Amino acid sequence: MTDYDDYLKQERERVNRALEQFLPPRTDPGIIYEAMHYSIAAGGKRLRPLLTLAAAEALGTSGEPVLPVACAVEYIHTYSLIHDDLPAMDDSDLRRGKPSCHLVYGEAVAILAGDALLTLAFELLARFGLERGRERTALLISAELAAAAGVAGMIGGQVLDLQSEGKTLTLAELERLDRLKTGALLKAAVRCGALAAGASDAELAALSGYASCLGLAFQIVDDLLNRESTAAELGKPAGSDQTRAKATYPALLGHSAARERVASLYREALNHLQTLEFMNRPTGLLRHLAHTIVHRQN
Amino acid sequence: MTDYDDYLKQERERVNRALEQFLPPRTDPGIIYEAMHYSIAAGGKRLRPLLTLAAAEALGTSGEPVLPVACAVEYIHTYSLIHDDLPAMDDSDLRRGKPSCHLVYGEAVAILAGDALLTLAFELLARFGLERGRERTALLISAELAAAAGVAGMIGGQVLDLQSEGKTLTLAELERLDRLKTGALLKAAVRCGALAAGASDAELAALSGYASCLGLAFQIVDDLLNRESTAAELGKPAGSDQTRAKATYPALLGHSAARERVASLYREALNHLQTLEFMNRPTGLLRHLAHTIVHRQN
Repeated sequence: MTDYDDYLKQERERVNRALEQFLPPRTDPGIIYEAMHYSIAAGGKRLRPLLTLAAAEALGTSGEPVLPVACAVEYIHTYSLIHDDLPAMDDSDLRRGKPSCHLVYGEAVAILAGDALLTLAFELLARFGLERGRERTALLISAELAAAAGVAGMIGGQVLDLQSEGKTLTLAELERLDRLKTGALLKAAVRCGALAAGASDAELAALSGYASCLGLAFQIVDDLLNRESTAAELGKPAGSDQTRAKATYPALLGHSAARERVASLYREALNHLQTLEFMNRPTGLLRHLAHTIVHRQN
Repeated sequence: MTDYDDYLKQERERVNRALEQFLPPRTDPGIIYEAMHYSIAAGGKRLRPLLTLAAAEALGTSGEPVLPVACAVEYIHTYSLIHDDLPAMDDSDLRRGKPSCHLVYGEAVAILAGDALLTLAFELLARFGLERGRERTALLISAELAAAAGVAGMIGGQVLDLQSEGKTLTLAELERLDRLKTGALLKAAVRCGALAAGASDAELAALSGYASCLGLAFQIVDDLLNRESTAAELGKPAGSDQTRAKATYPALLGHSAARERVASLYREALNHLQTLEFMNRPTGLLRHLAHTIVHRQN
């Protein structure tokens, strides 16, 4: 356990508390609040909000003032997981080691809980901007997140993913799918942290480069883990890509070439951080997060 | 056909053009763009965006500068219709006189098209604020719309509606359901128009009162039409409330008491407009819209 691991653990707990705190107070009908709470409390690695906090911290703005932005990112990520797991989509029973939202609360409430978390993300950003007098920053972050989560980003990627089942994709097609489906929101997580810290154009460009590489590496590692792990290790169904004949990097490239691509993306991500270091920005935490993402076991 | 009818027809066409124009440019995967376009182009009365424009116009800000706000409201309304029609929800085959989105594009794409329209609404508001230097106004509108569309508004109402099937509600329970499910967004449509025009607190209060009455009247008229009309007249299934044993005003109060409640809400709405007239604000268009909503045949 390094000092960074310790620090990230504390930050993760801070994110978890804030995610609870920013949920709306429970009123009637209680079931929708319970469903939102269930999916948020199910946990997960919180990589995206940690990336948001780490990007802001590298630019000199740490912790509390960035928490609403980090939580908005995680609410959007969680909504996308709830909707992706629905019977009409990936039809997945297990998420973050627990039964999927629709298995516990039914499909209708799961759809609405996802809708509610997406809506809440933008409400939180609006209130953040109004209450702290950071109107322009809040709108830049809202626009960034909406674009990353919309049809030209995550939603477009999910459609491509649904269409790809049973098809053979080229490497370029698979990379486009992944850059949209997972890459766009992960990149936005980093960029929103940078925007919250008032990044310069050069800083934003370096962090965007870092996040782009990391987003793609994250997905390739996901594909590798899906083949190699058990459901207990992953907290979601293992081997499901093969069962559903999904296009993946290891299926297209073979295991070792996929691992090599991860290593090369990792090096490229660190190169972007070097640019940031030349601007006298500390990048230890961002380096450590990149390492964590590339070497994770679930 | 009055002059107001003529004017509203022009405004509706203007809204329709703007709704098309603010949709994202089509790229691959095309199906999600087609599904969004399909549900937007299916039309409808556009009452909510017309209310947004009329509220702004009463306060001296007309047309083009308010169009992004009016379109954001209609995108959110349309997303809610797509999701409400899903098999897991109201399971409705007909909407605005055409097959529901999920019948044409499948459930997965319909869920995602709804998600995309909701996301687009907030992106549009953010860009509106940034491009016109109206940051604070855009955030106030974003917060207003998100609250109205979220669990404490429209989504909460939809959950109550799903839970109410086959149950006998009290009048108070039914009124709460309707104020959340339809009332909240309709009220937000008016308030967002007022916010876009820089309303004073007194103006906002009068317009909120008007919109509250109108929202409830709208829903009671909806219930009455559902019983009395054919699917061809409504553009959506008729008699479905009775089939699904849904609580409605005519079922609870009887036909003539329900009609009387509409008339009394209509008078109350006009009283609120009178307050606005004392502030030298022209209310002809808002009066006419109230009349249209109460006397509509579909």
